[in-house]
Amino acid sequence: GPREKKRKEGWNVSSSLESKGAVNNVRLSEEKYFKEVLEKRDQSKELIKLSIGDPAVFGNLPAHPVAIESLKAAVDTGSYNGYGHSKGLPHVRKAVAEKFSVINQAPLTAEDVIMTSSCSGALEYAISVLANAGQNILSPKPGFALYDCLTGAKQVEIRHYALKPDQNWEADISDMERLVDDNTAAIIINNPSNPCGSVFSKEHVKELADFAARHYLPVISDEIYAEMVFPGSSFHSIASVSTKVPALVCGGLSKQYMIPGWRLGWILIHDPVDAFKDEVRDGFTNIVMKTLGPSTVVQAAVPGIIQNVPADYHERNISILQMNAELVYDGLLKAPGLNPIMPSGAMYLMVGIDINEFPEFNNDIDFTKQLVLEQSVFCLPGDVFKFPNFFRIVLIMPGEKIVEAVQRITQFCIKHHHISS
Amino acid sequence: GPREKKRKEGWNVSSSLESKGAVNNVRLSEEKYFKEVLEKRDQSKELIKLSIGDPAVFGNLPAHPVAIESLKAAVDTGSYNGYGHSKGLPHVRKAVAEKFSVINQAPLTAEDVIMTSSCSGALEYAISVLANAGQNILSPKPGFALYDCLTGAKQVEIRHYALKPDQNWEADISDMERLVDDNTAAIIINNPSNPCGSVFSKEHVKELADFAARHYLPVISDEIYAEMVFPGSSFHSIASVSTKVPALVCGGLSKQYMIPGWRLGWILIHDPVDAFKDEVRDGFTNIVMKTLGPSTVVQAAVPGIIQNVPADYHERNISILQMNAELVYDGLLKAPGLNPIMPSGAMYLMVGIDINEFPEFNNDIDFTKQLVLEQSVFCLPGDVFKFPNFFRIVLIMPGEKIVEAVQRITQFCIKHHHISS
Ligand SMILES: Cc1ncc(COP(=O)(O)O)c(C=O)c1O
Ligand SMILES: Cc1ncc(COP(=O)(O)O)c(C=O)c1O
Repeated sequence: GPREKKRKEGWNVSSSLESKGAVNNVRLSEEKYFKEVLEKRDQSKELIKLSIGDPAVFGNLPAHPVAIESLKAAVDTGSYNGYGHSKGLPHVRKAVAEKFSVINQAPLTAEDVIMTSSCSGALEYAISVLANAGQNILSPKPGFALYDCLTGAKQVEIRHYALKPDQNWEADISDMERLVDDNTAAIIINNPSNPCGSVFSKEHVKELADFAARHYLPVISDEIYAEMVFPGSSFHSIASVSTKVPALVCGGLSKQYMIPGWRLGWILIHDPVDAFKDEVRDGFTNIVMKTLGPSTVVQAAVPGIIQNVPADYHERNISILQMNAELVYDGLLKAPGLNPIMPSGAMYLMVGIDINEFPEFNNDIDFTKQLVLEQSVFCLPGDVFKFPNFFRIVLIMPGEKIVEAVQRITQFCIKHHHISS
Repeated sequence: GPREKKRKEGWNVSSSLESKGAVNNVRLSEEKYFKEVLEKRDQSKELIKLSIGDPAVFGNLPAHPVAIESLKAAVDTGSYNGYGHSKGLPHVRKAVAEKFSVINQAPLTAEDVIMTSSCSGALEYAISVLANAGQNILSPKPGFALYDCLTGAKQVEIRHYALKPDQNWEADISDMERLVDDNTAAIIINNPSNPCGSVFSKEHVKELADFAARHYLPVISDEIYAEMVFPGSSFHSIASVSTKVPALVCGGLSKQYMIPGWRLGWILIHDPVDAFKDEVRDGFTNIVMKTLGPSTVVQAAVPGIIQNVPADYHERNISILQMNAELVYDGLLKAPGLNPIMPSGAMYLMVGIDINEFPEFNNDIDFTKQLVLEQSVFCLPGDVFKFPNFFRIVLIMPGEKIVEAVQRITQFCIKHHHISS
């Protein structure tokens, strides 16, 4: 008789390894890990959410009118309703290339720019083009949870190299040396940093570039917080510091222009050593054709935004963030059992917890959950960033809310802090 | 001495299997396969591009003012600059759920809707959540090249089931029976069809649903051309026809509203048999967190668009597409060696080539390349859709261009057609 093929015998639809691996701990925090405590919390107190780096929530960090007008003008032309090139509209790529060229390397051209659905999309493509399942990528610890999500989705192993909280969150190069092997596909660096709020010195960026060059590792440089640094610090793109490594610099409009909802980002291909060749560039040609690029009408707003938003807009935003950082830092320095670390940029501040001095809590997760329950203050535990016994505070809310949050956290610490003798 | 780890010895950056597998033959046609003939063509004739289904190219199928105003209004609120839920803004998902609920199933809720970066993004997520590398997916032949790109990216095997050109492009169920096995993760159906322009009868949609149910296969139903059917035909969503199969219905604004550049789509989860459960829904929860959803400001325009664009807008567009279809069909029926097939919807028409009657050409690729060189008319060969000895014509250009294109194609056929005796 004819061979019988094996057939399914009932509805048993399983989800893929990709979807099981794409775990984003930041985004799942509210929906899942903290869902119960958020529901059960003391509702007499207004919830203060210091958990997500969304500058558009409170209204104190609005988009610049130039951004709004650029988008409306793009809509009005009627010229951006159709498909664009999957790597992005040529004139937009050109404008981005001109804006983000750096002094020590040949100017970028439109060919070196890929427009993406936000910086997340840029990171996704960079990782997707460079790494196969079973390879590994080096990534900072503490680090942005999306790196774990994107590598996890692809069954790429993520190896976390330590940042040193007591040394301005610089990377521990010896830890990186320990982790790298010939199956390492790339290294992720993130400067300025989420969650640390740190800004690397030029020397440290050079050290990182030298490490990558020594091991022939392409760099995925997450520079979404480029130029968001407090006075006294300066931002150094990896591309401006080293001509020894190929780098995929990921950026976008989300943070500097305070419009993460628009979902517009880019990859800058800096390749002074000609390591990527057609191989990697063709990889991008293919991969962008999966979804044919980001919204053309939003893309069309980009040149106006990056060329015409005035410097004082950024200065104002930075001074708000810095003021908030100082409020939190100064306040929590006085809270028993806490060790805040003053940031130099971005929009975050990390706070160390002397967890042994809080006998009721095993770890930062217990601590932050109880903080929600009792004080309705929601911060993400260091665990989310692979860095236990810390928690992260987002610095985007108006000053009076910050003060209130600091007071409540302090009260919480006073209540639970006990030094056993 | 200490063990030496194996280290890389030079720059040798290779691109991933994902990027190598993500081959989109439609999009590569202009950039790659036809690049040379497009450059070498007879420049005295204006190029008529009938290759890409972009309704926004010629200005004859403009966006409706309601769409433009809805987007500008969304920008003006200032409320959509921040992150939305990664599955989409709740009120937008609700509006989509209400619009696309079907008579024979329980009404969709916001929970059953996922907003995506265009229908391509919807298809990418649907495939990503349902299939693992090494599994297979059934997909129509001829079929939209993106299905090959998306499965190829994931090392999912695509198995092409035949559509029957002489039977209104209905699927050959016996071919599907031959291809399915217990490693089949899903079946893709596309109705109305690109590239065929066919619209399945209710009975045929039911046959397809029955096939899927018999094999416990979830359906990925690409309904981006929903309701774009010529008078005399009617559109039947798989969800409205069968309560036996779980379906991920993929759609969006691109075609019905003629704004593909906005990149806004969705997945509707129809699951009358409760096959997906938390397993698949959690898969989506994870996977959307890779890039945090499509542009919120564009999403916010969706309710206005789907609720307020008047019916006569669609009627006008459909009548233009139908008129164009008739011009092409009637014209090419008279061209020697060609067999056009009249479509019933969407924006495409397939033309069979009696290739043996064109002794200079081995196949549809030769035929369409020479057509570019001599006549500056650019159509995609059937090969791109895995269906040799056909070519596809896109029906979006103004009537006078159609007439001109038909004349040139006819001239071309008269010159090259020879029946050997
Ligand atoms: C370090 C870092 N990279 C990337 C992103 C994602 O940016 P986008 O919203 O443009 O996807 C974020 C957002 O918080 C971030 O903190
Ligand atoms: C059948 C089919 N599905 C999906 C798409 C992609 O649509 P979108 O532009 O919304 O990604 C197209 C575009 O041509 C198509 O023809």
